[in-house]
This record gives sequence, structure tokens and C-alpha cells, in this order.
Amino acid sequence: ALNGDAKTMNFLQEVVDIMLAYIVESFDRSTKVIDFHYPNELLQRNNWELSDEPETLDDILISCRATFTYEVAPVFVLLEYVTLKKMREIIGWQDGRGDGIFSPGGAISNMYAMLLARYKMFPEVKEKGMSSVPRLVAFTSEHSHFSIKKGAAALGIGTESVICIKADERGKMIPSDLERRIIEAKQKGYVPFFVSATAGTTVYGAFDPLMAIADICKKHDIWMHVDGAWGGSLLMSRKHRWKLNGVERANSMTWNPHKMMAVPLQCSALLVREEGLMQSCNQMQACYLFQQDKQYDLSYDTGDKALQCGRHVDIFKLWLMWRAKGTIGFEAQIDKCLELSEYLYNKIKDREGYEMVFDGKPQHTNVCFWYLPPGVRYLEDKVEKMKRLHKVAPVIKARMMEYGTTMVSYQPQGDKVNFFRMVISNPAATFEDIDFLIEEIERLGQDL
Amino acid sequence: ALNGDAKTMNFLQEVVDIMLAYIVESFDRSTKVIDFHYPNELLQRNNWELSDEPETLDDILISCRATFTYEVAPVFVLLEYVTLKKMREIIGWQDGRGDGIFSPGGAISNMYAMLLARYKMFPEVKEKGMSSVPRLVAFTSEHSHFSIKKGAAALGIGTESVICIKADERGKMIPSDLERRIIEAKQKGYVPFFVSATAGTTVYGAFDPLMAIADICKKHDIWMHVDGAWGGSLLMSRKHRWKLNGVERANSMTWNPHKMMAVPLQCSALLVREEGLMQSCNQMQACYLFQQDKQYDLSYDTGDKALQCGRHVDIFKLWLMWRAKGTIGFEAQIDKCLELSEYLYNKIKDREGYEMVFDGKPQHTNVCFWYLPPGVRYLEDKVEKMKRLHKVAPVIKARMMEYGTTMVSYQPQGDKVNFFRMVISNPAATFEDIDFLIEEIERLGQDL
Repeated sequence: ALNGDAKTMNFLQEVVDIMLAYIVESFDRSTKVIDFHYPNELLQRNNWELSDEPETLDDILISCRATFTYEVAPVFVLLEYVTLKKMREIIGWQDGRGDGIFSPGGAISNMYAMLLARYKMFPEVKEKGMSSVPRLVAFTSEHSHFSIKKGAAALGIGTESVICIKADERGKMIPSDLERRIIEAKQKGYVPFFVSATAGTTVYGAFDPLMAIADICKKHDIWMHVDGAWGGSLLMSRKHRWKLNGVERANSMTWNPHKMMAVPLQCSALLVREEGLMQSCNQMQACYLFQQDKQYDLSYDTGDKALQCGRHVDIFKLWLMWRAKGTIGFEAQIDKCLELSEYLYNKIKDREGYEMVFDGKPQHTNVCFWYLPPGVRYLEDKVEKMKRLHKVAPVIKARMMEYGTTMVSYQPQGDKVNFFRMVISNPAATFEDIDFLIEEIERLGQDL
Repeated sequence: ALNGDAKTMNFLQEVVDIMLAYIVESFDRSTKVIDFHYPNELLQRNNWELSDEPETLDDILISCRATFTYEVAPVFVLLEYVTLKKMREIIGWQDGRGDGIFSPGGAISNMYAMLLARYKMFPEVKEKGMSSVPRLVAFTSEHSHFSIKKGAAALGIGTESVICIKADERGKMIPSDLERRIIEAKQKGYVPFFVSATAGTTVYGAFDPLMAIADICKKHDIWMHVDGAWGGSLLMSRKHRWKLNGVERANSMTWNPHKMMAVPLQCSALLVREEGLMQSCNQMQACYLFQQDKQYDLSYDTGDKALQCGRHVDIFKLWLMWRAKGTIGFEAQIDKCLELSEYLYNKIKDREGYEMVFDGKPQHTNVCFWYLPPGVRYLEDKVEKMKRLHKVAPVIKARMMEYGTTMVSYQPQGDKVNFFRMVISNPAATFEDIDFLIEEIERLGQDL
């Protein structure tokens, strides 16, 4: 979409007209309550494919009209089917085979993965609970997302059974430490069942070395999950996808199009390499919902493999954006965000008053840095300096929020005092916006 | 909203204009990225209250404009705060005190409740997992929703530790059977920790006797949850809320405005009587997200009490509908749906070719019945008759879907062959629509 120009606005108005017409039509009792088509027929009759090249805006309008016509019909299930398959192809699983689901966010996708790993190793846990299995342990890096621990707490595994593996100075999991801790756990009689590698950590944007981790998981027969909630979308970029080399060897992957692909919240996918596992892990076969005597192919009834019952339609916006941008459109916006973050990095790495939190080019769009105002910059007393520096970012952010000019988050990490973490996921940002950001930090932090 | 009339369409067009203006504005770099207001200030400055009486459409437009202005500001958290408090007042908890969250559906809300109950009794489970606690058992009626078992499987409790309590012929849990099974479990050395009573079962629409269940839970010191995903909204009706008498004694309640209140999917609330429990149960205090050195009152940071990280905004549509309809508007639409189902019941209970699945007026809007086509109606052989009858509803439903005229679900239950379950949750339905439904069933089933 261009900057609110006439063409874009006309297009949006046409979409609105389609929706308003749909509302009016829904009051008309002579229209059908459902325009049913058999899933296979629907799949074959229309072109639902996701291509490299974008469709025209007119094509997009046709898709909108078709979808609102087939409402209640299995059109959204088909779109999920087509899109998940495409995502699995991009991961590199053979012929896009496997399984998956759209879940309400990355935390829940990660929880699904842990649930599947446990069930794969001990299927009896479904009926008999955790008391029927030995003590299970999971592994993830100390920089991983807190949802891994949250999931372990919820699933009755316990946060103490999540072993945090050391990360290097760039925030990447150290494979040798992973293997050491796995062996140590086995010696204690625990059962390692799950390794969650992170592709794009929250703070540093680091990519764990997936190939080395896959080797270790294979050797010790442990489920390998890749939490690519933040960094998974780099798979869409020919320039950056090498950072996820080895992901094709994972058993499952979390990938949130609502982050780097700029799909409106919520849109998170869990992709699973093994077919059928989600179904057997989660199904309860409630006979009032999942009747076996329906007139269509029941493989399109995806309800029983979810933890949820009804599910919000998260697929349509993603599918429609994909049609409108093409794979190359997503690639271009991702590449641009990474280019902007590199521009920011180059601009501040040697600038007076700035210090980088870690060396080297950003791996994702996370640029982590301290701004040292003149009053802090020249302090001799190291302890006093850190104490003062710790308070700088919170004050600058509060001032940013009050002026409303920009917003950059901050946090401490380990023994490092509060630093800024600039993250770029909006491809409409420009080099000038980055220049403005620097000026603004200096303007608001000058007196501190 | 009236039947697509000019006034409604003008209103919708104005809402659209507000949104389009918002899109255009978002491209303008001279506007603020956030118009920040302190939560308390925001709470006091505007009127966010939910009243009995509806606001005017002009007021609703003002609310829409205000909300789009405060985007990113804590406006949605405030709306959640105001709405959850109102819902707790309606439940009958003193001064609306307690806690709650909007979750992605009733299944997840029920899972939250089970998680809280377990943590309340054994807080060490969070760190140490299920292996640190005795064998826990949960209780729910044989007619309850399958999400209770799904939750138990996910949380590592196991489906075998969910004890199904007998229901009477109307589908209500039998309290004496509940107490018997609790005592039996204790004798085996198990620890009963959770009773899920259902307010509005999925198939029969039955309301479990909450008062008697509350007595038993109190006596045995067990967490009482009410799964009111389907029937909870009857609390809004002065005429029907007696069916939930005793809910005020529950520890938690699931209530889905996306069902009987006709809020678009997803909109499900979990309400909890004890304050602070959700936070301590679920928090992981990820320092990069939940900084303690922010400039505003941190009690508005609700993120860490959720299982999710980012959450879809489910509150705005509910809050806006409540403002537009008032409590009395919701009451009127709920009363109307129940009136329509009673009309259907009265119409078929003595009609030739129909048989009710259970006796008596529907408690909720579920009307469960068999239609016996002439070819089945007079069969002498009981076994043959049931065999044929079992196939009637699936064929009629398939035909309905192909014609697109209407849709009614069916299912078997226990030893009962497939029957229709007509559920009315659309207040735009009329008596004529019910008449049409009967005619249509007979038209499509005549020859079977």
C-alpha cells in the first residue's frame, strides 16, 4: 500500500463495499445460509495458490468477493491447508509434507510443540498424566523467550526442568554446552525430550546454530523445535535465509507472520514435520462435534487436533497479503528492514556517546546499544557510571512516549544495565526515520 | 442493527471513514506515534462505563474516534479492566472484585481455570512439575465439554484423572454422585482439586445445580469452576439468571460473549474470584518485557498473567456493543432467543413424527429432537427402527447444506441415536424462521 494515495484508498473503499453488501445480503432471507461446496471441488475449481509474483488489486477484490460468498463453507480451512503447505515447502520439508496449525500467538505455538514432543516419546501421558513418565527435561538457551518456561509450568513439567544453555557473546546457544547438559541430565536419570532452538532471540535477535543443534538432537534422539516466532520469516529472503540453515532438520517450528511479515496480530503458525501426530495427541473425539458420518472428506475437519474448540480466522489476512505481495513482496520488505537496521548499526557504532551491546553487524533487525549522555560519558567511577547509565534509557523512553515522537524499548540483560533495543519491522520506515531517531535520542537525553 | 436500512448503513459508513482516516493519518510522519496518557488519567477523564441503557449511535462514533486516537496507549487494557469488573459484578462477587482475562476461546479459559486450581493447592507445581505432587483428580459431568479432558491431557494431569459424574435425564450433574466419587477418590489416596460444573451443556443446554455443587466443593475444600461458555450469558437476563444461582460461590467462571451475546468470534472471558493468583501462577518476570522502572502504574501491565505473550484485542467489539445496546439490549436479545426455542419446543412436542430427546421445556436454547419420516415412523422392529432413524438426521443435514436453506446440527449421545440439536443464538431469527425450519425438515426428510 502506498502512502494513502487515491489508488489505495479506492481499493480499500471497494473492499468496504464488498463487506457492506455482505451485511445487507445477510438480512435477506431469500439468500442461502451456506453455499456449500465439497472441499476437494473447491480446491480444484479456484486458484488459491501462493506465488512468487503478486496478483493485481483486481484479483484481490475477486478473492475477497469469493471468500465472502463461501462463508461457513470450508474456504478458510482450505486457505490454511494451502498456506501451511507453502510454509513447510519454504522450511524445506519434502514436498511440503507434514502438519500444522494457526494458533493464538507464539507462546501457544511453542506450548504445542512441547506437548507434541512429550506425547511422541510417551503417548501414555495423555491418559495417565505426568506421574506415569520419568522426569522429563527440556533445553533452551538462556536468551530464549520466556514462553518456553511458561509452557513447561503449564504442562506440569515445571520450570526447574527447563535447563538454560549458555549463549555466546552474540546471544547464540553454545552447542557444546547443550551436549554437556544433556549428558549430565541423563546421568542423573532424567529424560531429555525437547530442545528449543531460537531463530531470532527477543533481545539480541540471535540465531542459534541450528545445524549443530540438529546433530546433537539426532545423536541423543531428542525432539528439535525451532522457535522462529521472530526470525522465522527470514526464510522468505534469499539473502538472509542461510541464518536458519538446519531448520529443515527440526521436528517443529514456530513462525509468526504477525511479526516480520507485518500481518496484523494474531497470526502465528506451528509447523510439524510428522503427519498425524497433532491429531492423535489432542483429539478427544467428542461425538457431538466430530461426526464420522458427514458427507465430505473428514480430513478437512481440523478442529480436533487443536487445543482450542472454535478458532478465530487468522489465515485470511495472511493469505490475502501473500496473494497481493507475492513471496517476492514479503522478501523485499524483510530485506529492507534488515537494511535499515544495518544502516542504524553503521551510523552509531563509532558515533560519540554510543556503545554497542555486542560486536558485529546485527543478525536480525535488533540493534542493541547504550546512549551515554555527556553527563555520564566522562564519569571515571565505573560503578557510579553504570548506576547512572541504567537510568538513562527509561527516562528517554518515558519522554519519547510523552512527546509521542517515537518509541524504542529498553531492558537490562544479565549483568548489563538498561540498553536500548531498536527493532525494525515496519518496511515503511526510511533512512530519514533512522536519522530522526538518533537526533531524538540525543535531544531527549542531552541533559541526563 | 436494523435490516440493512439507511440509518445503519450510514453509521457503518461513518465507522469506515474513521478507519480510513486513521490509515491515511498513519502515513503522516508529523503525527504522533503514540498519544500517551497515564492509565489513571485516562480512566478518569473519559466515561468508559457500561450501563443498563444504550448510548446513541453518535456516542458510539465518539468512542470509535477516541479509541483510534489512543492506539498503542493503554486504552484496551482499560476497557478490559472496566468490562471484567462489570462481568464480576454481574456474577455477584463483592464489589466486582477479583481478576480475569480475555482468552482465545472457552477451551483455553477452562484450561486456565484448571491451571489456577492446581497452583492454588500446590504452588510448587510451577517449578517442580507434576512429579512433586500427589495424584490429582478433577470432576465434571458426563455431559460437559470435551475441553476439560483436553486441558487435563495438556496440563499433564491425564484424561483418566478426569472423573465423569453422572447426569440426570435432563443432562444435569447429579450432586450425590459427585460427592460419592470425591469420597471414593480420597479413599484411593488421590487428591480432588477441581470440579467443573457446566452452565449450559453443549448438547442439552443443561445447567448443573450450582448451589448443591458449591456446598460439596466447600465441604471438601475443592476449587469450583463454572464452565458458562455457552450458558453464562443468561446472567444478563433477569428472567433466566436463576438458572445460575450459586455461581457467586464459584472460584472461577468461563463466560463467552462470542456465543449468546453474539459478539464476533473470538471473545471469551475467564473470571477469577481471588485477586493476584493469575499473576503468581503464570508470571515469569522476563525482564526485557515487564520492566519495573516504567513511568506508569504497573498494575495495568496485564501481560505476565497470561499464557500468551501478545494478545489479539478481543475486548473492543464487546465493550462497544455493550455501550451500543446497554445491558438491557443484551438481555432483550437473550430473552428473545429463549422465547424462540420455547416456541419451537411447543410446536413440535406433540406434532406427529417428532419425538423429544428429553422431557420438559428447554433450559437454554437447545431443543433436541428426532424427526421420524413416515417410512421410519411405523416400523415395528425396534432395532431396525433405531438403525434407520440414526441415518435420518445426517441425510437431512447434508441436504440442507446442499440447498443452503438452513443448517441444524445433529449428534448421537450415549445410547441415543442421531438427533437434531437446534440452537438459537441469533436474535434476528423470527417465529416464521422456526416455522420454515419445521417445514424444511419435513420436506427434505419426507422420503427417508
